[in-house]
Amino acid sequence: MIKKTSLKDIAQVVGVSTTLVSYVLNNQKENRISKEVAQKIREVAKQLNYQPNQIAKSLKTNKSATIGLIVADISNPFSSSVARIIEDEADKQAYTVLFGSSDENPQKLEKLINTLLNRQVDGLIIAAPEGAERQLIALQQRTPFVLIDRYFPDVKTNYVALDNFQSIYEGVQHLVDSGFRRIGMVSFKTKLFHINERKRGYRAALQENDIPFVKSWLKELEPATVKTEMAKAIRSLMGGAQPVDAILFASNSLALYGLKQLNALSIRVPDDVAVLGFDQAEAYDLFHTPLTYIRQPLLEMGQLATRILVDTIQKTGTTTQVNLESELVIRASTQSVGLIRKDG
Amino acid sequence: MIKKTSLKDIAQVVGVSTTLVSYVLNNQKENRISKEVAQKIREVAKQLNYQPNQIAKSLKTNKSATIGLIVADISNPFSSSVARIIEDEADKQAYTVLFGSSDENPQKLEKLINTLLNRQVDGLIIAAPEGAERQLIALQQRTPFVLIDRYFPDVKTNYVALDNFQSIYEGVQHLVDSGFRRIGMVSFKTKLFHINERKRGYRAALQENDIPFVKSWLKELEPATVKTEMAKAIRSLMGGAQPVDAILFASNSLALYGLKQLNALSIRVPDDVAVLGFDQAEAYDLFHTPLTYIRQPLLEMGQLATRILVDTIQKTGTTTQVNLESELVIRASTQSVGLIRKDG
Repeated sequence: MIKKTSLKDIAQVVGVSTTLVSYVLNNQKENRISKEVAQKIREVAKQLNYQPNQIAKSLKTNKSATIGLIVADISNPFSSSVARIIEDEADKQAYTVLFGSSDENPQKLEKLINTLLNRQVDGLIIAAPEGAERQLIALQQRTPFVLIDRYFPDVKTNYVALDNFQSIYEGVQHLVDSGFRRIGMVSFKTKLFHINERKRGYRAALQENDIPFVKSWLKELEPATVKTEMAKAIRSLMGGAQPVDAILFASNSLALYGLKQLNALSIRVPDDVAVLGFDQAEAYDLFHTPLTYIRQPLLEMGQLATRILVDTIQKTGTTTQVNLESELVIRASTQSVGLIRKDG
Repeated sequence: MIKKTSLKDIAQVVGVSTTLVSYVLNNQKENRISKEVAQKIREVAKQLNYQPNQIAKSLKTNKSATIGLIVADISNPFSSSVARIIEDEADKQAYTVLFGSSDENPQKLEKLINTLLNRQVDGLIIAAPEGAERQLIALQQRTPFVLIDRYFPDVKTNYVALDNFQSIYEGVQHLVDSGFRRIGMVSFKTKLFHINERKRGYRAALQENDIPFVKSWLKELEPATVKTEMAKAIRSLMGGAQPVDAILFASNSLALYGLKQLNALSIRVPDDVAVLGFDQAEAYDLFHTPLTYIRQPLLEMGQLATRILVDTIQKTGTTTQVNLESELVIRASTQSVGLIRKDG
């Protein structure tokens, strides 16, 4: 294999001691070393492409200026957009980001945590999968970390998340204000707190508007089989004697699968059903009817998580918990066709 | 800060020597150690959440079972999809992947290379930015690596890429076969070889079909200002006395910006213009007219790059260069409306 240039290699070429080379390249005791020798050592180090061993260094200083990011699935646009924002913010703070996907699996999360800590990262930003409480509680003894997007009420730690209850509440209120009353929601079957907050927001907004909750209008799909279950869910919501007049999708991946199904069944938006999406996706702009959606503040979320982590690395103490507000972006997919028809 | 459990900590709790603890936890000389003591050491190590220091280990063995992945921009769906595939394949081969974005910047590439090598990765997979030849030639002396997606004819190294010339050639041939003659192409202004191969494929297919090349129908946009230049490009292609009847976008990001502009200008697809996209995007399915596109074999690309890297890490020697074929996925956006009108 290719051998890395060592201090010894440089010392042999220049004809000085390894200690002297180390002094020069670490900028120590330089006033005692002749300028010519110091310059020669630097030249040879450059010629031989010498790279200081940051890892050996970080073993001594216990600081690596590297943070680890664990997302659920890097191929999801939410994950990759947030990853990019965190990379940019970390770069500003002179940190490098190394990352991986937990694949919604607590065991894989644990493996990634160990890999990253063994690579001496200074701290972690984590979008944790369902069932990760044990791993996170154990992690509190090991390294500073900030949860992003998902958090656990029983784990007292730093987090930056959306106010999911309020976001969905406002989305449902917009549908009600637009004249819709038969509002379905497609979400995940999960114990994840942030997803269940969305369900709570849906039910609370219906109740506040004196609209009865219809159990068959809330579809909770198994995350592993969303693709196949979505077809059934859409047919159930749109079929029978009691079809819904609006559908709220509780995540961007749910919305994408749902829109594909609506297309496949030739269901028109908003003529046959209004659609409200969650989070962002290029497809929301390019769907035949531009989608109304609940915009998460990704930039703020990624930047804040990074800054809180860097603060915690540099001085421990406080726990910072942030619930951010979303923005409702209203477009044609929730236009009240029925009302327009009556008026027109 | 939080202190990691050391061998010494365990030795103190059990009341044995650090050397003995090291033997047990590294599974060495165990036949000479009493089973009770070995078991006690393991229990205490677990209680204290001892993590073997992989970095100290990798300094000795020169192997870390970690590979680095440098993509152009993790928020691009091509990058994030390939990253996920590489993570999955590396996991099968017992490697962990750490990654970052070069942001199409050779200096940032160099910084990331140094960070990853200083973290003792065993090798790298790189989607290199324009102008990275110098960094890559220097890298050949330092670590095994495989280029993915982009490669440089002057740098003799492992790569896995698309046969870009042939892919675009076939796309243009499909447009010609569907009755289109006034075919525009929107691409990037760049020195990147793989992008210029796409341009070469476009011109070769036109020539083969005796269609003259019209300079103003080939738009080469500055990567940094695509968003603003796209509006101008689309207006130019669709306006004047000689509007095009088909547009080929040379990347997924170009297609997404282009489709948004076509929508903004109320240009109908395929009635006013046929559209051929490159690579995949959720939006291709959800655009009002499903898009015909040139599908890159992402799974094959990511898996092959990972396997070639692992082979190269384990035994040096050969250089492997792979040009993969694309698949043309034909849908409604390149349907020949003119011909249908004449026939119907």
